[in-house]
Amino acid sequence: MSSDWFHLLNVLGVAFFAISGTLAGYDKEVDGIGVTVLASVTALGGGTLRDILLNQPVFWIEDPDYLYSTYLAILITVLLIRHFSRISAQYFLIVDAVGLGLFNIVGIEKALIEGTSMVVAVTMGVTTGVFGSLIRDVICREIPLVMRGELYATACIAGGVAYAVFLYLSVPYLWCILGSLATTGGIRLAAVYFDWKPKLYKTPD
Amino acid sequence: MSSDWFHLLNVLGVAFFAISGTLAGYDKEVDGIGVTVLASVTALGGGTLRDILLNQPVFWIEDPDYLYSTYLAILITVLLIRHFSRISAQYFLIVDAVGLGLFNIVGIEKALIEGTSMVVAVTMGVTTGVFGSLIRDVICREIPLVMRGELYATACIAGGVAYAVFLYLSVPYLWCILGSLATTGGIRLAAVYFDWKPKLYKTPD
Amino acid sequence: MSSDWFHLLNVLGVAFFAISGTLAGYDKEVDGIGVTVLASVTALGGGTLRDILLNQPVFWIEDPDYLYSTYLAILITVLLIRHFSRISAQYFLIVDAVGLGLFNIVGIEKALIEGTSMVVAVTMGVTTGVFGSLIRDVICREIPLVMRGELYATACIAGGVAYAVFLYLSVPYLWCILGSLATTGGIRLAAVYFDWKPKLYKTPD
Repeated sequence: MSSDWFHLLNVLGVAFFAISGTLAGYDKEVDGIGVTVLASVTALGGGTLRDILLNQPVFWIEDPDYLYSTYLAILITVLLIRHFSRISAQYFLIVDAVGLGLFNIVGIEKALIEGTSMVVAVTMGVTTGVFGSLIRDVICREIPLVMRGELYATACIAGGVAYAVFLYLSVPYLWCILGSLATTGGIRLAAVYFDWKPKLYKTPD
Repeated sequence: MSSDWFHLLNVLGVAFFAISGTLAGYDKEVDGIGVTVLASVTALGGGTLRDILLNQPVFWIEDPDYLYSTYLAILITVLLIRHFSRISAQYFLIVDAVGLGLFNIVGIEKALIEGTSMVVAVTMGVTTGVFGSLIRDVICREIPLVMRGELYATACIAGGVAYAVFLYLSVPYLWCILGSLATTGGIRLAAVYFDWKPKLYKTPD
Repeated sequence: MSSDWFHLLNVLGVAFFAISGTLAGYDKEVDGIGVTVLASVTALGGGTLRDILLNQPVFWIEDPDYLYSTYLAILITVLLIRHFSRISAQYFLIVDAVGLGLFNIVGIEKALIEGTSMVVAVTMGVTTGVFGSLIRDVICREIPLVMRGELYATACIAGGVAYAVFLYLSVPYLWCILGSLATTGGIRLAAVYFDWKPKLYKTPD
């Protein structure tokens, strides 16, 4: 993938997740700094963990654009929330699903560039996609959403497998990306729309 | 330690902790992905933190064997749990104690190879041993087991001190390893068997 | 800043935060190991995250002095608590405010030495200052203090901005440091003394 595309996808994903993190942070018992911390962790946490695990320079330290984009997205979201009494939950979910697909792809790409095997790359995609919101939920003392009955990580895995299959079938590069994005985002949105929920088990039966 | 031995100990420790993490995850209000996340964090979390702190390549990214071993151990454990109505808590504790001893040794060894001082190496052993389950408990919103009245970290410290003493006394290498393992695992199991509990203090008196 | 000064500030900050972490840990339902883990995380957590993010060797692994200083500060604090029935909460807050100012400066300095932009450096200062206690609170299952109505991160940001402004105005180096320290510590103590609290929002209005 050209470096420009890569950069754009990553900046978009960060902005989308910062918006979704701000909206989520607004429900908690925190102050303005707290919302900023929660939104930043959501937006930057997954990618930061990915870069640390891959022993790469952390993306938002190398390139302050990501930090500006995060802070700007938070500011705009906070201003919009204050003006419009309630932003529809649907927008939140769509923004979140697109961000998830973007982060998944970026994680897989970065791992493959570092020469990891495909199973590690798919694991990196899931990590990039879900760890931001997992850490956010842990900070807010909630059982992470990604771990209870939301097809969140599953959507990432499916998107990763789709990418690997398309690559194996020699599908043109752009379509590998778009196919994976559509798979991840589509499964996530379908899960919300049709209310697909995996079974929770507390005790085996 | 020969690199093969090192590898085997580490793979064994990871598999043991993945089993123990899966058994622990089964008690929580999570779905299949949640159990996988909790078990992976238990199995890989301590070692990952150790490698990041030592500025070394993360072990399971360099060598996908660890990831296969984790996922396989989780799968087998889940299948076994479904077939046998209830796996005895005793097996869980033994598996966990052996894993703890192995992780402790591997952490100390890796730190010493990097040329750290002994106090840092023992701290690394404890980190490798306890941080996986500490993070798992934090994700599940529980006060970490290792911090309240279980001789868990204490067993690691004792194993680390035993190792340092044996090394100082020029005991043959293999016996340093076995002695440390026996100390850590033995104290942990004895603590459970004899119900040794350190005093919790909420307020000093 | 001369390397000796840098080292001294960092050792002082670590010891101060270890004391404040021990005092905080004493209120929780944990054993001796638990207090040690909580105090160590408070003292070393923020700086560790900073070094990992900056892709630098972690400070307490390179130089075991920090570990000795942490363990010693914990030990002395535990002994003092046992002898004096109750250490005044005021001392705790002063110790904590000074530690906060020191960590903030050290974080900014380390980032600037690595050649980051000022916005990343100020973010690093806040990270160094607040992440230790944020992680401590998360481990103890509390909504982090820094995120609800305490001018904690805000004091760091103000100290960082003060530093940047002084540097821009070509104020002599030592005064940049002292000015930033006074700003951070002063705002933090004033917030406690005058009971300044930012508004918490659960829902926008």
